[in-house]
Amino acid sequence: MQIDPNRFLADLHALREFGASGVGKGVVRPAYSDADISARDWLASRMQEAGLTPHFDPVGNLFGLAEGPSLLVGSHSDSQPEGGWLDGALGVICGLELARAAAEAGGPAISVANFQDEEGRFGVTTGSTIWAGELPLDQADQLTDRDGTTFAEARSAMANRAQGFVDPARFTGFVECHIEQGPWLYEAGEAVGVVTDIVGIRDMRITFTGAQNHAGTTPMHRRQDAVQAMTAFITAINERFQNVVSPQTVWTNGHIDVHPNAHSIVPGRCTFSMQWRDGDGDRLRRMETIIRDTATEVAEARGMQVDFGTMLGLEPVDMAAPLQQALTDAAETTCPGRWRRMQSGALHDAANVARLMPSAMMFVPSIDGISHDFAEDTAEADLVTGMQVLARAIGSL
Amino acid sequence: MQIDPNRFLADLHALREFGASGVGKGVVRPAYSDADISARDWLASRMQEAGLTPHFDPVGNLFGLAEGPSLLVGSHSDSQPEGGWLDGALGVICGLELARAAAEAGGPAISVANFQDEEGRFGVTTGSTIWAGELPLDQADQLTDRDGTTFAEARSAMANRAQGFVDPARFTGFVECHIEQGPWLYEAGEAVGVVTDIVGIRDMRITFTGAQNHAGTTPMHRRQDAVQAMTAFITAINERFQNVVSPQTVWTNGHIDVHPNAHSIVPGRCTFSMQWRDGDGDRLRRMETIIRDTATEVAEARGMQVDFGTMLGLEPVDMAAPLQQALTDAAETTCPGRWRRMQSGALHDAANVARLMPSAMMFVPSIDGISHDFAEDTAEADLVTGMQVLARAIGSL
Repeated sequence: MQIDPNRFLADLHALREFGASGVGKGVVRPAYSDADISARDWLASRMQEAGLTPHFDPVGNLFGLAEGPSLLVGSHSDSQPEGGWLDGALGVICGLELARAAAEAGGPAISVANFQDEEGRFGVTTGSTIWAGELPLDQADQLTDRDGTTFAEARSAMANRAQGFVDPARFTGFVECHIEQGPWLYEAGEAVGVVTDIVGIRDMRITFTGAQNHAGTTPMHRRQDAVQAMTAFITAINERFQNVVSPQTVWTNGHIDVHPNAHSIVPGRCTFSMQWRDGDGDRLRRMETIIRDTATEVAEARGMQVDFGTMLGLEPVDMAAPLQQALTDAAETTCPGRWRRMQSGALHDAANVARLMPSAMMFVPSIDGISHDFAEDTAEADLVTGMQVLARAIGSL
Repeated sequence: MQIDPNRFLADLHALREFGASGVGKGVVRPAYSDADISARDWLASRMQEAGLTPHFDPVGNLFGLAEGPSLLVGSHSDSQPEGGWLDGALGVICGLELARAAAEAGGPAISVANFQDEEGRFGVTTGSTIWAGELPLDQADQLTDRDGTTFAEARSAMANRAQGFVDPARFTGFVECHIEQGPWLYEAGEAVGVVTDIVGIRDMRITFTGAQNHAGTTPMHRRQDAVQAMTAFITAINERFQNVVSPQTVWTNGHIDVHPNAHSIVPGRCTFSMQWRDGDGDRLRRMETIIRDTATEVAEARGMQVDFGTMLGLEPVDMAAPLQQALTDAAETTCPGRWRRMQSGALHDAANVARLMPSAMMFVPSIDGISHDFAEDTAEADLVTGMQVLARAIGSL
């Protein structure tokens, strides 16, 4: 089974044209945007040309279906508000090229997946979560994005394309290729990472509520300043986590919303995101305890109120051993000494699909480790090497 | 000279109807909004009925002019995005009632001032700053509000009312009545505060720029997280200020803008406000040194960039001794033992007008010290006592 590097790269560049934006190879293609829907329509036509049957499900997940039992290969084509040209798009085009190469080689049967809203306009890996049965559709419909649009409203833009949900039983397994989104492969000069497991994630919003007041006339000792509470909280957990975390553990306060957000007003309310990730479910729970205890202590010490939003929790998940083995064998043949086994610190659709069928993931290097940014990129030689590893692994199954 | 408490309170309540909003007696009447312009038109008609000549200047400052030399009394009728019914509105209606009472008593001649944008949609005390010659109109025209509207665009909404700037030389002095906006008078059960001086203020935006990246795949030790930099900065200045500040010193980080402000992205850029106030110009400068040094150290330690926006600086200003004396004498006669001399921690139009003519300020209590909030309020008995002190003081000049 021989892939066609030029055809593969040409399709990647063609897909980038939908939502091409920003500097470099930046893309703005959030889920259900015009650019996202146009990209999915174009991908459906490319699937049809490849001999697959395009199938949109009720939430906009797009499948290119081979006849009979098949291996599913893919990822997602939606992007972050400011994203790069590869991210999930790479995995979708990998699936398309593998399906074409396999058809030309007379097998094996390969179907293609393009999940919707992996980037979490409405949740986290929304489309594959719903497909995996982890989130009922009627609950998902009530999710809102930052502008207050509901998931139900957003997916209605694709309703005229929708058929039913695809039966997962028709697939023998799932393989997802993705950029690493971290620095390790790039810095080591390696071409391929075979994923052993995907870390678990916890994510919630924390709100400190104090007293909004005049910034000139309210003495410091009488303030109930929500920004000061947030600052004290972040400083304290940074210290307390040191007793619990490993070098792989990460935590992020990426979103802050201050009210009323004016220079001359002591801020009365501050809502911010608290996200933490680790491969060990126990450690995630110990961190949660520190977070809740510390926020409660900070609020009590200042006579303020703290509220914890709904906590999103996804447990760590292992990749299927036989698929890992096929990928490591193919990597050692294709690029000996230039690959590694590694954990995925990012969440991916494969974490959901792994609940339905044996699943595996493979990474290619991210230049300077940059992702979720217009500057995200990967050397084209590395993209082609990754394709060759995938083709060899899948051919060996 | 006898004020009419019912006429005075009725006008205060009538003014509140322009932009009445929120809970309690809340008001939404930011500078140049429809509510603000309608309120100014109504006030102009009330000035005319009081025998004054209404006069709008090029930036929307409204004067009610008495003939010949006169004492100017007033404040501002624009509000914060979420403000109360009194704030500057009280001082404007005080001026109106005093002008009426003085006319009925056969003197002295009183004019009324209603400055524009005291609350700083475009700057800080914008209208009186321009009138006092501290900010050239062509520079002011380039100021923008948070939505990107320029001052030039905003003031054009009042252009058909505009005459020239009023000559300050026609006024013999300025008196501004205002709510305290702090807790001291209310908690002591006092009715009046005679202002000795207005604190100085410094205000600027600080921006930390690091690297936007994936919140799952970027190890903690490799991050250049702009929110973490801000947090480290705020924590450090809280400590370092302890060697410099007095119990009256205040500092506030009331505005935060994170980019791209998403849960799953390490924030690459964070801009926030740094405002500090004190009655001592030297202390303000020592605090500025700590702020700039600390922010630079935080940025350098993290390999990040720090940028300081334009610093707004207003020096502390003393109130005119003869006017202070008239107010303290009147307070001791009207409400013996229930008044005090005090500093103003809030900036006011009087700080600008004091550069043009002898100026004074008088405070009435704020219930629970609350201001710049829908919950701002003052007992009506205290409002009337304040009016009586003003009338007695002005009658004695």
